[in-house]
Amino acid sequence: MKKIKVGAVGLGRLGYRHAENLAFKIPNAELIALCDMNQEKLNETVNAWNIPFGYTDFDEMIKNEELEAIVITSPSALHTTQIAKALDAGLHVFSEKPLGTNVEECKIAEEAVERHPELVFMLGFMRRYDPSYAYAREKIKNGEIGKPVLFRGYSQDPESCIDGAIAYCGHSGGQFIDMAVHDIDLACWMLESEPKSIFAIGGCYAHPEFGEHKDGDNVSALMHFKNETMVFLLAGRTAPHGYNVETEIIGTKGTLRIASVPQKNLVEILDEHGVRKECSQDFLERFEDAYVEEVLEFIDCIVNNRKPEVTVYDGTKTTEIAYRCKEAFETNELIRM
Amino acid sequence: MKKIKVGAVGLGRLGYRHAENLAFKIPNAELIALCDMNQEKLNETVNAWNIPFGYTDFDEMIKNEELEAIVITSPSALHTTQIAKALDAGLHVFSEKPLGTNVEECKIAEEAVERHPELVFMLGFMRRYDPSYAYAREKIKNGEIGKPVLFRGYSQDPESCIDGAIAYCGHSGGQFIDMAVHDIDLACWMLESEPKSIFAIGGCYAHPEFGEHKDGDNVSALMHFKNETMVFLLAGRTAPHGYNVETEIIGTKGTLRIASVPQKNLVEILDEHGVRKECSQDFLERFEDAYVEEVLEFIDCIVNNRKPEVTVYDGTKTTEIAYRCKEAFETNELIRM
Amino acid sequence: MKKIKVGAVGLGRLGYRHAENLAFKIPNAELIALCDMNQEKLNETVNAWNIPFGYTDFDEMIKNEELEAIVITSPSALHTTQIAKALDAGLHVFSEKPLGTNVEECKIAEEAVERHPELVFMLGFMRRYDPSYAYAREKIKNGEIGKPVLFRGYSQDPESCIDGAIAYCGHSGGQFIDMAVHDIDLACWMLESEPKSIFAIGGCYAHPEFGEHKDGDNVSALMHFKNETMVFLLAGRTAPHGYNVETEIIGTKGTLRIASVPQKNLVEILDEHGVRKECSQDFLERFEDAYVEEVLEFIDCIVNNRKPEVTVYDGTKTTEIAYRCKEAFETNELIRM
Amino acid sequence: MKKIKVGAVGLGRLGYRHAENLAFKIPNAELIALCDMNQEKLNETVNAWNIPFGYTDFDEMIKNEELEAIVITSPSALHTTQIAKALDAGLHVFSEKPLGTNVEECKIAEEAVERHPELVFMLGFMRRYDPSYAYAREKIKNGEIGKPVLFRGYSQDPESCIDGAIAYCGHSGGQFIDMAVHDIDLACWMLESEPKSIFAIGGCYAHPEFGEHKDGDNVSALMHFKNETMVFLLAGRTAPHGYNVETEIIGTKGTLRIASVPQKNLVEILDEHGVRKECSQDFLERFEDAYVEEVLEFIDCIVNNRKPEVTVYDGTKTTEIAYRCKEAFETNELIRM
Repeated sequence: MKKIKVGAVGLGRLGYRHAENLAFKIPNAELIALCDMNQEKLNETVNAWNIPFGYTDFDEMIKNEELEAIVITSPSALHTTQIAKALDAGLHVFSEKPLGTNVEECKIAEEAVERHPELVFMLGFMRRYDPSYAYAREKIKNGEIGKPVLFRGYSQDPESCIDGAIAYCGHSGGQFIDMAVHDIDLACWMLESEPKSIFAIGGCYAHPEFGEHKDGDNVSALMHFKNETMVFLLAGRTAPHGYNVETEIIGTKGTLRIASVPQKNLVEILDEHGVRKECSQDFLERFEDAYVEEVLEFIDCIVNNRKPEVTVYDGTKTTEIAYRCKEAFETNELIRM
Repeated sequence: MKKIKVGAVGLGRLGYRHAENLAFKIPNAELIALCDMNQEKLNETVNAWNIPFGYTDFDEMIKNEELEAIVITSPSALHTTQIAKALDAGLHVFSEKPLGTNVEECKIAEEAVERHPELVFMLGFMRRYDPSYAYAREKIKNGEIGKPVLFRGYSQDPESCIDGAIAYCGHSGGQFIDMAVHDIDLACWMLESEPKSIFAIGGCYAHPEFGEHKDGDNVSALMHFKNETMVFLLAGRTAPHGYNVETEIIGTKGTLRIASVPQKNLVEILDEHGVRKECSQDFLERFEDAYVEEVLEFIDCIVNNRKPEVTVYDGTKTTEIAYRCKEAFETNELIRM
Repeated sequence: MKKIKVGAVGLGRLGYRHAENLAFKIPNAELIALCDMNQEKLNETVNAWNIPFGYTDFDEMIKNEELEAIVITSPSALHTTQIAKALDAGLHVFSEKPLGTNVEECKIAEEAVERHPELVFMLGFMRRYDPSYAYAREKIKNGEIGKPVLFRGYSQDPESCIDGAIAYCGHSGGQFIDMAVHDIDLACWMLESEPKSIFAIGGCYAHPEFGEHKDGDNVSALMHFKNETMVFLLAGRTAPHGYNVETEIIGTKGTLRIASVPQKNLVEILDEHGVRKECSQDFLERFEDAYVEEVLEFIDCIVNNRKPEVTVYDGTKTTEIAYRCKEAFETNELIRM
Repeated sequence: MKKIKVGAVGLGRLGYRHAENLAFKIPNAELIALCDMNQEKLNETVNAWNIPFGYTDFDEMIKNEELEAIVITSPSALHTTQIAKALDAGLHVFSEKPLGTNVEECKIAEEAVERHPELVFMLGFMRRYDPSYAYAREKIKNGEIGKPVLFRGYSQDPESCIDGAIAYCGHSGGQFIDMAVHDIDLACWMLESEPKSIFAIGGCYAHPEFGEHKDGDNVSALMHFKNETMVFLLAGRTAPHGYNVETEIIGTKGTLRIASVPQKNLVEILDEHGVRKECSQDFLERFEDAYVEEVLEFIDCIVNNRKPEVTVYDGTKTTEIAYRCKEAFETNELIRM
């Protein structure tokens, strides 16, 4: 059983989770290097898990000749540069979404991937690896719901995280690029099509701070896809009940709903509030398994010398669509693609 | 369209509801008389609804020669005497459950009913007239769940009504006779069988007052029916979430659950308590329609000169079974019938 | 207890239901006249229910001097003329939706209503009288969900009714006018606002016949309301699971969902298809109670000399909005109001 | 990071899963040996996973001096002998339930465990390690549901597995010992009490073959626990909808339900069967995570030199209670403990 030697870049919340999964839950991976600009956080983790190499400088890290692959969870603006450098250093690369913060950046990544057909590149659209989404997509592909009529995707962050969202909102690219990009990828992936027209609206219903960046705390888009399917997306930051990622695909012969109750677990409570389920509180809780599954897939691609289903072009396409949604929102005009 | 002239006896909570339904919701009934010992309550209602006759004395009421039928919602201990008197006075009779507070009383009613085959007698097991119960029973009769394996019936009153329940517990006959009798009727009706052995337990989990009457605030019984079906009943007074009447019939080919969430209406709420449904708060809310349906059936039987499905013998049988449950509970012995 | 003498116009499916409710379920109403162009259907019903007067001619009917009020369920194109005639004849009027098939027609009704401030006029937006919708609206008004962010309304007819829908689609005005008008009314009523911009799309996903009338079998609209709330509507004819009217209002402090499972009753089935609820099959099953409640309200307004909440202007407004949706759909342009 | 060298005994369905988890999902474990009497199955697995040692003889395996721990999933009748031998050979032991097929056997295991206080012994009551059960138990311990009134536990195997169940029913010990033992452990664990009286019934509702072994295809027991809580258990083999393990704890202040819908995943389907969720099909699907968690706990106990919560005495106690249930069922008498 060959183990792939992996380095992890970025020890923020999701980066730490990726590193932890690499260290403990991916049998064919061996986490040998960590990289984070925060020396203290780095040392702490390196020591706790007994990791051989620690770096505060990405360029130094990729010189490590033992390394075979890296997992990038750095700030979005660094993604494409790091992807290109790592590929050029001969490393397989897994990068968190978004591919880049604009289409020009994405092209840098595309070119690097095209320069290195011998290497595996994969983008972190983890929802595709959630068992429920995978199950639903199979049903769609098998024709079990007939022709898709409407795709509805909600991505709602809990109000409890609003302070972080506000602090970050100047750099996030906005709700469409930061949040809806997952739903855009799901829609394109499940429907095997892409938008021909986009209308987008929204507002600051609770938090005017988002308005300072021409964004809203809740925004939505209605798109007509080239295959005629209607696609409605909502991205919001003010869900009082928790983290809510909910998807519905209405077809002519059946409808599928994924996680229409964002349940924490299988416990139902009957008390003075009624009959209720508690909700998952963040993306790490909801997609705990999917974050493992996607990296299992990445490592398996390396081991078996094959390419993952998620390509660099999916990254460019979703970034572009998200930008057009943002443009529709900002201009209040109908966008035709 | 002939209208049956009806009198209503008892203006307690349920009695008032029956009278109100007779006055406004039963097209073929005309409420012409009310009877209650509380003169003030009586006058108030008679005046509000413009009812021709008001009585504080039952014996006086049944002398009224215009009357064709009466609906009895008096205290349980009065049921069988009033039933007999009314039938002997030539009136069709609808009586609330229980038929009597013991088997001897029930026999009085049985004899009166047998003396008057020309009259309609019906007992108020309203659950049979709830659309969901009726629907489930049809499925069972049609063999859609195969052979019944387990019948599980919960009857839970909300903790919010506990003061009334405690005040009344010396006269109610106890949880089996006062509450579980509905589930006993449902089990016998749906399974078309009756118990051969009974084990019953329970306790005072929150309210020691019930113990003073050799009762519990929550009790249960496991019965083996003659057709081999297992029957498990729970009757309780401490439900924090509301009024909960929930029934499950597990069969070899399917399971039916009726009202496993005791929903107030079709509204689902997503808030800081999770994803939840509010519950119905009492029997009047949960069985609002069934209380109308059963009296519609009673009146229709009179108009069309036919007999209702619920017979006086169902009343005796359920009373007897409830008594044996109580005996099992009190003696802590296995009862064989 | 004064009984209002009512006439019912139209004995189609919904008209028959209204007539039946007036005859048997509305205590303060007395159904004394029926009107339908189909002589056979008319006679049959008049005889069955023992109704004093039967008419095949509307103009004859309103000459009946005993009549105090009428309930109109005639073809949509006749509504406004009949409303005006009846009001001018001194009758209180309840009319089914839509008020008129275009805004000009609606103005005729508005003028007639304004000519007769002494009479009650009410429009049949029955959903407002569904207990769950009424309950949800109270919560919104009380601020329980904070500021409304998104209103989502689905109206889906079952595929099983598709033949009728296709046969009727040349006269119905299209999905927005025939179906979505209910959701438009709900949105305006619950949000107390109206659209400032509209984008609408859709297509013929299963039934090209709708395309012949510049319509789709499923259509949707995204509207921005003047109070900033986003409103997304779907109207479709191809639901395989039954009649689905589902509404969600996402607010900054809570979300309400009404009938997100279009349940037939309280029975849950566990069998080889999984754990499931059967669905209601049509609007008469789903809104059985609401159709009674709205007419109870109409009659109560007459008896107590007050005006209903639903006004003639609601009829004009929803018709106008539905037309603009249709225009957006047909032109594929963004409509600003 | 020290890795514990583990051997796995038994490559049946569950044994294979345990071995697979040890090989790939337990970071601190290294699977170095496998043991199964089936030479072919053994070779196949040893080769596929590159395991250093393979044995067809348990006694040979435990002579392997590299081994530190073993996981036993052999036939139930072998459990206690293998436990004792392994402990005496200095190995930490994890054994699948039941501890033994009778109380005498259990005592053998108890003595061996007492002889080796330096070693970790753990029993495979995996449900305790299911996140939902663990979550529910915390709520109970924290007093969130008040005093427990009723514990209801269902364990239902799908009808689709009936052939295996019938073939095995002569050796399984019967439904109480083979299936209900998990619910018995849950009840004792969650309620921190044990039965004082037991009544048990059941029958062969679909499959007379179980009757040949004095068993039923569905059986139930009602127990009164020493702390007064009522405990109702159902164990059955004929569930048409899938594998159903469902638990409810009704307390005076709240009720918890765990997995009352035995969902396969988060997908909800709306089609001609209604609105439905598909169910998990067997214990490996339902408790996939719990089977990993319990072995993670076992290994962690070894690494950190501590004892697991599940003790050998839990094994004896649940076996004894299951036997008394069986006795109650067979004799049709009330059992007092």
